[in-house]
Amino acid sequence: MLENRESDKTALEQLGEFGLIRHLSRHLKITQPSTLKGIGDDAALLRFAEKEVALSTDMLVEGVHFDLGYTPLKHLGYKAVVVNLSDIYAMKMEPTQVTISLAVSNRFPLEALEELYSGIALASEVYGVDVVGGDTTSSTKGMIISITVIGQGEPGKAVQRSGARPNDLLVVSGDLGGAYMGLQVLRREQEVFKVNPRHQPDLDPYAYLVERQLKPEARKDVIALLESLQVQPTAMIDISDGLSSEILHLCGASQTGCVLYEEKIPLDPTLIAACEEFNLDSTTVALGGGEDYELLFTIGQEDYSKIKGNPNLTVIGHMAQKESGAMLITRGGQQLPLQARGWNAFDPAE
Amino acid sequence: MLENRESDKTALEQLGEFGLIRHLSRHLKITQPSTLKGIGDDAALLRFAEKEVALSTDMLVEGVHFDLGYTPLKHLGYKAVVVNLSDIYAMKMEPTQVTISLAVSNRFPLEALEELYSGIALASEVYGVDVVGGDTTSSTKGMIISITVIGQGEPGKAVQRSGARPNDLLVVSGDLGGAYMGLQVLRREQEVFKVNPRHQPDLDPYAYLVERQLKPEARKDVIALLESLQVQPTAMIDISDGLSSEILHLCGASQTGCVLYEEKIPLDPTLIAACEEFNLDSTTVALGGGEDYELLFTIGQEDYSKIKGNPNLTVIGHMAQKESGAMLITRGGQQLPLQARGWNAFDPAE
Repeated sequence: MLENRESDKTALEQLGEFGLIRHLSRHLKITQPSTLKGIGDDAALLRFAEKEVALSTDMLVEGVHFDLGYTPLKHLGYKAVVVNLSDIYAMKMEPTQVTISLAVSNRFPLEALEELYSGIALASEVYGVDVVGGDTTSSTKGMIISITVIGQGEPGKAVQRSGARPNDLLVVSGDLGGAYMGLQVLRREQEVFKVNPRHQPDLDPYAYLVERQLKPEARKDVIALLESLQVQPTAMIDISDGLSSEILHLCGASQTGCVLYEEKIPLDPTLIAACEEFNLDSTTVALGGGEDYELLFTIGQEDYSKIKGNPNLTVIGHMAQKESGAMLITRGGQQLPLQARGWNAFDPAE
Repeated sequence: MLENRESDKTALEQLGEFGLIRHLSRHLKITQPSTLKGIGDDAALLRFAEKEVALSTDMLVEGVHFDLGYTPLKHLGYKAVVVNLSDIYAMKMEPTQVTISLAVSNRFPLEALEELYSGIALASEVYGVDVVGGDTTSSTKGMIISITVIGQGEPGKAVQRSGARPNDLLVVSGDLGGAYMGLQVLRREQEVFKVNPRHQPDLDPYAYLVERQLKPEARKDVIALLESLQVQPTAMIDISDGLSSEILHLCGASQTGCVLYEEKIPLDPTLIAACEEFNLDSTTVALGGGEDYELLFTIGQEDYSKIKGNPNLTVIGHMAQKESGAMLITRGGQQLPLQARGWNAFDPAE
């Protein structure tokens, strides 16, 4: 009776809501000293003493933000946590706790949620955050994941979007556009699979891009690097919606303009090759792609020598007076106004 | 071009995600000293200094937790916030900030979300909490609301579920079962309306019950009352799933049994009348109904004199040794084991 008729999977209603939460959270460990009490009461209890606290939340909807046709559930769980942690790192703070809320239709057996939670558990272990609460309920369609993350930092040290000044250098970590091209590769394979289910995809040449899409990392290492280099960014944001959209957020919040140099935008060779194959312009992909979860920040010019030559960081331009606008200087030397081409969750064309 | 063709409502994609968040949050005020920065960055910034922090989250799914056929959107927004605040009060802590995440299908125009947000804003004003963040995205079906609430309290003063001891008195605020019967009334009216759309419902006799269902309040006043009476509960929980289920949570977490007296369960006269009309047993309704958001707590016997005769509080039983189990003593003097009949989000029969 523990298995339903259609398969050898366990139906969720057999556990009930509380049984399910207990079951899914049984392997999660509490490691943060700021967690006094995790799952199991009306609320989690935390203690931050002399610290400032950062709070961020994100909702992921099946069919809008992810497609289970090519997203393994474990990767989805990992990514759902990581994209939230990225928001805390983007304040130069340390994520400490997350809550996971989940609505799932009855098409998902228990084993699917176990897979999802194994990814959540892995991310919480890798990044050292505690899962301290959440909610699990049924949906009438599909899977919806809502994650809230809390972080801590020294008072007054949080880096907001609003601190950039004209002439500050604009710096980005890693390389851009990979997650978007990984998505294109996965979607192409899915189309081929629909026509020929026996098709064996060879994703090896695209491994880097596919990993950028399916298993992104939050740049905890970059925050540690900035700390060790003693660089305090004047403004920072993470790249979830595409470089141009995030630059415009920094400019808007800081009341500045900016100059971005196309030739400086860091691109991985695999990305350039894939863009050629898909007949896409790599700059457009980097500017609008999204989901790279790299950090974009500004630093005073006096800090340039501290980051110069660091393989993880690239200066891609500088901030400017508000009146001069946000400009892209192309490889050909042309000046173009930078436009938000970020991903719009309400755009039916997406 | 600002209006879509099917009606004079504004389609969500016309604003875009950031425009929508800005628009919906434009009237929200920040009043908590612990809020350093609200909406508008990667994360909100908070400061709690010497306090302990409580964190709770809840997800509401259209068609599972609410039915827009009889739930006005403003009430829904109000209730969604209130049920989360209730979890913080149930720790005897003060809610201070909330984040609101929303997934909505394109069947909802902007005006619908404005209605929802007017209820969210009202609740945040009434209870003095700041809306400091959230996420707004599209869903493939229906509306999903995920709310996270943060609260604060003096270190060591949070009341957990686990502190009840044998012989502690079991106390409940307000009266029970009203929200459930309000739901029955609303569902009946909806059925009548389906048959006869011209039917004018007379909800006056059920006003109290309907309000309990559509516009519940969190018992902030009871927390203030306990404070003024200098009563520190040994354990506490809010009644979201029905009295019996919550009592069993207290017994489980505290490793105790309990004795509940049927005749002591506080019932409003309107509820008793409605139960007779619907041919339902009022004790069953109070035990299993849920959504009353009253507080259920235990106090040491030495505190009895402090609460005795208070019209807001009713002693309904006492805790007992674990071995004697959780028992209901009926009006006829019969002893029955108390069973969880709470609402199960995964039970297809619900």
